[in-house]
Amino acid sequence: MTQSKSLLSRIKQQLPANEFFLDPAVCNQYATDKWMASHLPDAVALPRSATTLSAILRLAHQHHIPVTPRGAGHGYVGGCVPVRGGIVISVERMRRIREIHPRDFVAVVEAGVITEKLQSAVEKRGLFYPPDPASRADSSISGNIATNAGGPRCLKYGVTRDYVLGLQVALADGTLVRLGSRTHKNKTGFDLARLFVGSEGLLGIITEATLKLIPLPPQRAALSVGYDQTSTAAQAIESIFAAGFLPCALEIADEFTLQAAQKYTGNPMLAGCKAHLIVEMDGQQSSVRSETKAVETLVRRLNPRFVRRALGAAECEKIWELRRVFSTSLKSTGLTKMNEDVTVPRGRLEDLLRFAARLQKRHRLPIACFGHAGDGNIHVNVMLDESQDGFAARRDAALNELFAQVLAWGGVLTGEHGIGLAKKPWWNQAVPAEVRQLHQTIKRALDPRGILNPGKFV
Amino acid sequence: MTQSKSLLSRIKQQLPANEFFLDPAVCNQYATDKWMASHLPDAVALPRSATTLSAILRLAHQHHIPVTPRGAGHGYVGGCVPVRGGIVISVERMRRIREIHPRDFVAVVEAGVITEKLQSAVEKRGLFYPPDPASRADSSISGNIATNAGGPRCLKYGVTRDYVLGLQVALADGTLVRLGSRTHKNKTGFDLARLFVGSEGLLGIITEATLKLIPLPPQRAALSVGYDQTSTAAQAIESIFAAGFLPCALEIADEFTLQAAQKYTGNPMLAGCKAHLIVEMDGQQSSVRSETKAVETLVRRLNPRFVRRALGAAECEKIWELRRVFSTSLKSTGLTKMNEDVTVPRGRLEDLLRFAARLQKRHRLPIACFGHAGDGNIHVNVMLDESQDGFAARRDAALNELFAQVLAWGGVLTGEHGIGLAKKPWWNQAVPAEVRQLHQTIKRALDPRGILNPGKFV
Repeated sequence: MTQSKSLLSRIKQQLPANEFFLDPAVCNQYATDKWMASHLPDAVALPRSATTLSAILRLAHQHHIPVTPRGAGHGYVGGCVPVRGGIVISVERMRRIREIHPRDFVAVVEAGVITEKLQSAVEKRGLFYPPDPASRADSSISGNIATNAGGPRCLKYGVTRDYVLGLQVALADGTLVRLGSRTHKNKTGFDLARLFVGSEGLLGIITEATLKLIPLPPQRAALSVGYDQTSTAAQAIESIFAAGFLPCALEIADEFTLQAAQKYTGNPMLAGCKAHLIVEMDGQQSSVRSETKAVETLVRRLNPRFVRRALGAAECEKIWELRRVFSTSLKSTGLTKMNEDVTVPRGRLEDLLRFAARLQKRHRLPIACFGHAGDGNIHVNVMLDESQDGFAARRDAALNELFAQVLAWGGVLTGEHGIGLAKKPWWNQAVPAEVRQLHQTIKRALDPRGILNPGKFV
Repeated sequence: MTQSKSLLSRIKQQLPANEFFLDPAVCNQYATDKWMASHLPDAVALPRSATTLSAILRLAHQHHIPVTPRGAGHGYVGGCVPVRGGIVISVERMRRIREIHPRDFVAVVEAGVITEKLQSAVEKRGLFYPPDPASRADSSISGNIATNAGGPRCLKYGVTRDYVLGLQVALADGTLVRLGSRTHKNKTGFDLARLFVGSEGLLGIITEATLKLIPLPPQRAALSVGYDQTSTAAQAIESIFAAGFLPCALEIADEFTLQAAQKYTGNPMLAGCKAHLIVEMDGQQSSVRSETKAVETLVRRLNPRFVRRALGAAECEKIWELRRVFSTSLKSTGLTKMNEDVTVPRGRLEDLLRFAARLQKRHRLPIACFGHAGDGNIHVNVMLDESQDGFAARRDAALNELFAQVLAWGGVLTGEHGIGLAKKPWWNQAVPAEVRQLHQTIKRALDPRGILNPGKFV
């Protein structure tokens, strides 16, 4: 659906200069995110304030124009691709950290603030904003909120939702509402702020967030552990939990990922390694030391190929560099990487890894698994050689089997990326009819004209 | 509004025997909770299963009969008082713990399970369900969920919401839906399960919950610290946070509370004590020891009147006994205790305590403050001598001033008890018109006939 140029031009005239663009060159930059889908919008709005954003939305509502909200455009599922055209409203110019309050333990930020910038700013004041999606150097707080972003540290600290105390949201008709509060506890009415967390831009546009902060743990440590077998790594994880540890992070990588990383980095330590764990601990100095030692004793009992220990931020970052290079290494194989962030009940971790290994043989497609083992949230990367005949059919067959099995285990299609366009084909399979109906009910109540992010899962 | 006896009798005939009661003697037991309001229902349903519960709700919906959901009837704000009569649906007979899964780290429980029973059951298996409302020996999981219950440990571990992975809910028309999942992370669609958390029975009836568990920390320790001044106690709290500690619990009590407890228990330690802190730490053995020592050093720097240290569950419980006796001691003064669970931004703790002290002078009403200092969630107990002339006017004036000041600071009327009937008079003042409108929109979408818990805040 292409919007009438004259209508959009009239809208442009009602808005502040340089906040609304119809130029194809600008529109072209807002057609896609990090997934493969792409669709040109008819206009791009880059408001500098919630007031302008609200005015744009009011006009779009009045004229029934589709609006696709956009954070930093760094999503992995096509969630901000404007599949019905219309207006992309990007919050990228709303990047002010309004307040960091060390006694209230809150930060108030505009929607477009880049997550890592907020984290650096609060850490300088001895405060901590734990959610750490891999994209945090590039993604915005509002994008994180719209997808309820996770990350390794969510094992101990919880996901983005757990840090959202309050939101300012522009509703479909442009009305600005302040939901929640700046208190760490609040039971006033329905939990409406968190209804917008994870709503993928279908219910409203987040313009500002009040986030919970906690004291910055003074120390961190990490272990990097290689094993001969996936099952041994899974056992190690169980033994860590059984000893009453809830580490800050607990990450796993499989053989294919490790081989790719070995080829890419030349790191000889990874040669022949079939499974790899990163365990991170944080807290007080002496606690982190003694707990890391205790966890090391646990993981050593299972005869690892190697154990590396890191103490302090600088050393830990070196261990995480390996984790960060996984994606790059996989891409450097020349294959196209389809990153599926399925989540299984925690006890199904080993089953999932074994299933993925069988899947790769059955469909002659390399599959690389790594991710948040502690949460059961594993990135299953189906690797595609797009030059081969029939790759698309094999990919679809493999994904169908993967998702069917994950759902049969009581798992879910997505742990932290969202449904967007990427998981939409499996939406009906993943969600029972009466729950889809409930989604429709909420959507219709909040966006009766259906202008917000149309063409997605509701 | 009294429902026609003949209609209710006909409904009774359509249901299993002994699950639906019209007897006044039964109805009389379901007229109130722990707050002062009371209203007789016309019928009481005690379903043994979600299926019957759903059938009752379907019939009530069909006939436009008000339905008031009830957990264990242990709320503090009149939330389950059936002010419009109709049917009370109590989940008290749905008390099966269906599953405790130590590898998935989840528990699946029917709505009526008593919170403490679940906690004991999971702790025997080395698992932990942290939310610990003071009422946990008497309150049900579904009541905790409907009010998003808190408790001391929420400082470190978060509130009930943070442990709700999935819910089975009976919607207003009786439709049963399963929301969420048993995975620890899930980004499938809107976060509908958590929309029902804290919804106080206005949007649906919770019939079953899938709860997140974590590894049971092997050790705990507590400090009991008395100070000469409220401001010193507040300083101690700040110094604990500043050193990077996020204790399991951080509780404060004021002079009035301590004097009442001293009279009640005869504990000489409390004589002359103006402020009291409990700091609890949990985790690994050696970490808890070293951290408790470090926190003790911090609190001793401010010249406490006394410090008592407890290591292990049994010793810690002795320290908590003092905390638990606060309510009883206050009641034993012969005065009526109005417990307001206001929450202020964390940095306003001292301001709140000072304000309460002034308020008590101004209105000649004793006011006792104690509670979750770390969260800014303080129980402000206005103590009433109901034999005195004009006590009600003085109470109302004091509460009006308290709530106005709390709201002016960016605080909230309720941190963990809910709005119910108790806070309803201040609802319009606490929540802006456009946010009340959004509550209406959601309520109308989910309960178009307005049968669920009518007469409350929406």
